[in-house]
Amino acid sequence: MSTAVAGNGLDRSAVERMVREVVRQRLGAVRGPKPRLVVNISARHMHVTKETLEILFGAGAELTVMRPLYQDGYFASEQMVTIIGPRHRTITNLRILGPLRPENQIELAFTDGIAMGIDLPVRMSGKVKGTPGCIVLGPKGHVELKEGVIRAQRHAHMHPDDAAYYGVKNGDLMRLRVESSCAATFEEIICRVDPKVKLEVHLDTDEGNACDLANARRVELVK
Amino acid sequence: MSTAVAGNGLDRSAVERMVREVVRQRLGAVRGPKPRLVVNISARHMHVTKETLEILFGAGAELTVMRPLYQDGYFASEQMVTIIGPRHRTITNLRILGPLRPENQIELAFTDGIAMGIDLPVRMSGKVKGTPGCIVLGPKGHVELKEGVIRAQRHAHMHPDDAAYYGVKNGDLMRLRVESSCAATFEEIICRVDPKVKLEVHLDTDEGNACDLANARRVELVK
Repeated sequence: MSTAVAGNGLDRSAVERMVREVVRQRLGAVRGPKPRLVVNISARHMHVTKETLEILFGAGAELTVMRPLYQDGYFASEQMVTIIGPRHRTITNLRILGPLRPENQIELAFTDGIAMGIDLPVRMSGKVKGTPGCIVLGPKGHVELKEGVIRAQRHAHMHPDDAAYYGVKNGDLMRLRVESSCAATFEEIICRVDPKVKLEVHLDTDEGNACDLANARRVELVK
Repeated sequence: MSTAVAGNGLDRSAVERMVREVVRQRLGAVRGPKPRLVVNISARHMHVTKETLEILFGAGAELTVMRPLYQDGYFASEQMVTIIGPRHRTITNLRILGPLRPENQIELAFTDGIAMGIDLPVRMSGKVKGTPGCIVLGPKGHVELKEGVIRAQRHAHMHPDDAAYYGVKNGDLMRLRVESSCAATFEEIICRVDPKVKLEVHLDTDEGNACDLANARRVELVK
């Protein structure tokens, strides 16, 4: 294999992955270079189905990109909603993230949950069975979600190369140390290994603010 | 010394301290029993001077107790104010803690600071020189604070017996591990040793929510 295959329509990152794979097979257990660790704060947001989007924003509505996210293909949309909790407390300007999903889901921090009067369960994204619901208002209509309001479990998106570097597999738990003037180590970071993603840890706003992630001197993921 | 001295007007805890001190002197380096560690969330609040209280609540106003705090003599008062930040964003129902202090101070979490548009410095309580200010509204008047808005540095109030148990002195830094479904370890917990206090760690709402302190299975303070 040589870089000449790049001429066959493969992109640069695909070639790099193939080269790394071959090198790893030939050299056995030699550990690759340390991957670049990105830690981002995931502020409160909503994921919607096509059906829900059309109820909230009108027939034929589509999500439009406000800002791309770190993972390829994901974005913060220009579309925002208002949510209403059981005690009629509201959060306005809750941003929808794209692309569309097969299930509706709202991810809040505990601080948001307390403000809303919702006792948030900590769940992996997508595991919304039996969770609280709320009312969602869009400019063209509203929906009552029966479930789907969660605090997302801390997680690390990982390419299989990253998982190999750290010696972990999908579903394993790791710890993240954030070195700052408010240093902290977060446990129970679940590894979500997928060949389509780049290494990225997601914290919520409570976690990011607790450790002053914005001014962190160093971040480290440890087994 | 015997418990008979309790008849001389000493309270029970003073007697216990004296007995512990004598036992420690006789037995040398024997470590006492593990102290009871209490970790409390300190939600956003204000400390006021007598002068400020009277401007906000009227001449002769006094703080009245809504709820005693864990440390003897301290309390959440019934008095609340509204604060206004540089971008005219407000926080209402900000509670004043008693007793009165020689300096005004407002303690917010980073989440509050972001909502208010204030870049909060992390400071030890009382060290407010050069920090941001804000406008404070009470029912009878308002004041413009030139400084005093901070995020309080994580701290552990400690009796000298507790400091001796952990082998630390005033100003030392410790770590607090909170075991929960969102387990975390907070570093840079500064020890504030004072013979008038009971062992208690104060976290702010971001920190308490980040680790789900309300549902913690175990808390541990380590050097």
